[in-house]
Amino acid sequence: MFKGPVPPIVPFSLGSLGFMTPFQSERYQEYLDTILKGPMIITLRHRLQCHVIRDTARDEMETEEPILVLNEVTIDRGMSSYLTFLECYCDNSFVTCVQGDGLILSTTSGSTAYSLAAGGSMVHPQVPGILFTPICPHSLSFRPLILPEYVTLRVQVPCNSRGQAWASFDGKDRKQLAPGDALICSMAPWPVPTACQVDSTNDFFRSIHEGLHWNLRKTQSFDGPRDS
Amino acid sequence: MFKGPVPPIVPFSLGSLGFMTPFQSERYQEYLDTILKGPMIITLRHRLQCHVIRDTARDEMETEEPILVLNEVTIDRGMSSYLTFLECYCDNSFVTCVQGDGLILSTTSGSTAYSLAAGGSMVHPQVPGILFTPICPHSLSFRPLILPEYVTLRVQVPCNSRGQAWASFDGKDRKQLAPGDALICSMAPWPVPTACQVDSTNDFFRSIHEGLHWNLRKTQSFDGPRDS
Amino acid sequence: MFKGPVPPIVPFSLGSLGFMTPFQSERYQEYLDTILKGPMIITLRHRLQCHVIRDTARDEMETEEPILVLNEVTIDRGMSSYLTFLECYCDNSFVTCVQGDGLILSTTSGSTAYSLAAGGSMVHPQVPGILFTPICPHSLSFRPLILPEYVTLRVQVPCNSRGQAWASFDGKDRKQLAPGDALICSMAPWPVPTACQVDSTNDFFRSIHEGLHWNLRKTQSFDGPRDS
Amino acid sequence: MFKGPVPPIVPFSLGSLGFMTPFQSERYQEYLDTILKGPMIITLRHRLQCHVIRDTARDEMETEEPILVLNEVTIDRGMSSYLTFLECYCDNSFVTCVQGDGLILSTTSGSTAYSLAAGGSMVHPQVPGILFTPICPHSLSFRPLILPEYVTLRVQVPCNSRGQAWASFDGKDRKQLAPGDALICSMAPWPVPTACQVDSTNDFFRSIHEGLHWNLRKTQSFDGPRDS
Repeated sequence: MFKGPVPPIVPFSLGSLGFMTPFQSERYQEYLDTILKGPMIITLRHRLQCHVIRDTARDEMETEEPILVLNEVTIDRGMSSYLTFLECYCDNSFVTCVQGDGLILSTTSGSTAYSLAAGGSMVHPQVPGILFTPICPHSLSFRPLILPEYVTLRVQVPCNSRGQAWASFDGKDRKQLAPGDALICSMAPWPVPTACQVDSTNDFFRSIHEGLHWNLRKTQSFDGPRDS
Repeated sequence: MFKGPVPPIVPFSLGSLGFMTPFQSERYQEYLDTILKGPMIITLRHRLQCHVIRDTARDEMETEEPILVLNEVTIDRGMSSYLTFLECYCDNSFVTCVQGDGLILSTTSGSTAYSLAAGGSMVHPQVPGILFTPICPHSLSFRPLILPEYVTLRVQVPCNSRGQAWASFDGKDRKQLAPGDALICSMAPWPVPTACQVDSTNDFFRSIHEGLHWNLRKTQSFDGPRDS
Repeated sequence: MFKGPVPPIVPFSLGSLGFMTPFQSERYQEYLDTILKGPMIITLRHRLQCHVIRDTARDEMETEEPILVLNEVTIDRGMSSYLTFLECYCDNSFVTCVQGDGLILSTTSGSTAYSLAAGGSMVHPQVPGILFTPICPHSLSFRPLILPEYVTLRVQVPCNSRGQAWASFDGKDRKQLAPGDALICSMAPWPVPTACQVDSTNDFFRSIHEGLHWNLRKTQSFDGPRDS
Repeated sequence: MFKGPVPPIVPFSLGSLGFMTPFQSERYQEYLDTILKGPMIITLRHRLQCHVIRDTARDEMETEEPILVLNEVTIDRGMSSYLTFLECYCDNSFVTCVQGDGLILSTTSGSTAYSLAAGGSMVHPQVPGILFTPICPHSLSFRPLILPEYVTLRVQVPCNSRGQAWASFDGKDRKQLAPGDALICSMAPWPVPTACQVDSTNDFFRSIHEGLHWNLRKTQSFDGPRDS
């Protein structure tokens, strides 16, 4: 994982990440030959950079190095039988309290991963934004938000919270957040240049059709009257 | 359409209704032979009976004969640029006002038709109930309801409504509802005995798998870590 | 928790269970006096009975006594970074594999609790049925199901599953399910007679309005043209 | 409606558009005084420009002047009992067929209007993008998309379509689309400078809280264990 400027990468599909990766791993030799011969079409994928703050009263970051995620950072209740209760701020304005199983902050690349399972929209990777998607919110009127790429988000476990919360980064590296802790998240300055098979838009539509079966239907059976 | 007791029917799939009908029309001769030889497994499908009330002050039904639907009755705004504003009552208790594109009252058989497209749940046809599903409601906190089969529902266009509403019955026979008109809806007393291919539960699961591709996935690609 | 026939109970609201309980705890003396004077209007609430099977090859129940739940039994992935992979059967017919955060099997009373947060419909407690609601399913085409009250459901962790699963009962009593274990669930024979404030339907509508703010809107602002 | 560069506007809330307009109309004099005194904080709101193509074989635009919308353009089935069947292209790549009640192409400003009622996400107005939101799609696996602001979308009624389709622009000016007709849509070059009350982010959060009751809950009742 590169912290500064990143060289171009070629995303091969291996297992479940596959649906956002245009290149099938079985044919890697062929693809690499084509790409190295050039020209290579590149798209920039954005990452989120995250900092954990221990004891918000003192407001010190746990580490100086940010944690970088390509898909999403998740804050959830883990095995706790208490709902999460997460106070969320956007550029220091209060946004809302998330009560439920948790919250996903996702890149647009990650919009077809966990955020989608939680009910988020599918966002083309060239749309600059950050997805704010609740997980099983305990409120009928919650809906996913999409925020500008330039904002800084802060998710805080209140000091009087009864349960604990857990952050995980691209589904890994779980860190416990105690009452009083917080997570700070913003867009990372260095995007990841990624090789395309055709171009960003064609690869996106192909991956949501082939990998996710987006809007797949039995074609013969629907051109009738609405309700029958 | 039978108004009183109904003889058993054999539902063949022809076009879009197909996904709830277990018998493929191409093989009708073979199926009919099997069924007539017996034994025939029967499931009862319920219908809704609807009455249109003109001018609720006088509270007279438009016709004595009810309109019967197997799937659903829909009240929508048609071409009107005004939202529907429908006052809904359940056994004379006020339920809510529906503001949006409209409202679907559906049988459980109809739960896999228009109600599903509007976001309703899929209900096994042996669950006795009536689905109350809004169409594009203008409220974040609306959710579909499922009500007991014994209730009587009343959907009323308020006298001061700016727009018109349109009722349609299994997607057909549009009737205009003017301000002051209402629709009364309850379960019809005579269910429709319907031949099963295997039994009610097997036919239901087969139809939602084959007809609607319910929970169809690329099986190889998902047994990995959650977020990746 | 009564295992056999159950005497009538009076549900007071204390904390988050409150939204399904019509009686406010502050006024308990007054309510109890009224109820004891009679007449008492009763509604029957159904429970699910659950058995954990260890090592399905031997197919023995962990205990003879079933675990009873008023709201729901949940099978989820806990802290595991692997998706759940749950094989589901209904009366011995294969239903589907649930890949995602987990699965909720809920009573209709529980339809306004966790199942609702996961996207399920709201079901009147007098509708006899069992809700089958996935939690963040890893499939675009999953939708909640509602099944008849007479079915027996079996949820099985495959022998080759990479992750573990956890069952919890009304949000408590977590039990780990290892690969090869299963959970069996059906409607309990003894319902719980529960005192109503008005009657089952009025109490249901009041609780979803007051407790969940169902379909609450700014009333003045929506009677205009659709899109503006 | 300005076709070229647009002078700054001050959005007052009148009726249902109110939820995206920060200024209450009752206090217009006071607001105008403050704004005219300056400084005025401005946000740019994007519009979509639409062209209707009659008879795609000849591919001529109906008018030279585009139709501009601030919220959305909708293509629906009107009173037709046939589902819409709309072929959609993005920069000449085939996207999908929309079968259902219709399709909404929306600005991010419009993400809190009709697109929201149809299940779209809420998008901060500073995120550059176009929302592609189906209306009651006849497919379980459809989800709303968000596409980059630089794309050109083409929605076509197939020549063999059985039903008719209707376009409407910010909820008005319905135009019939016959089989063979199409609608072309892209971001308009001239955004609309709009006065803010505080700033774009604060105004957005205020409007979704106050106008739409986003994530409003009974605060006292949810800090308990998850399922109860």
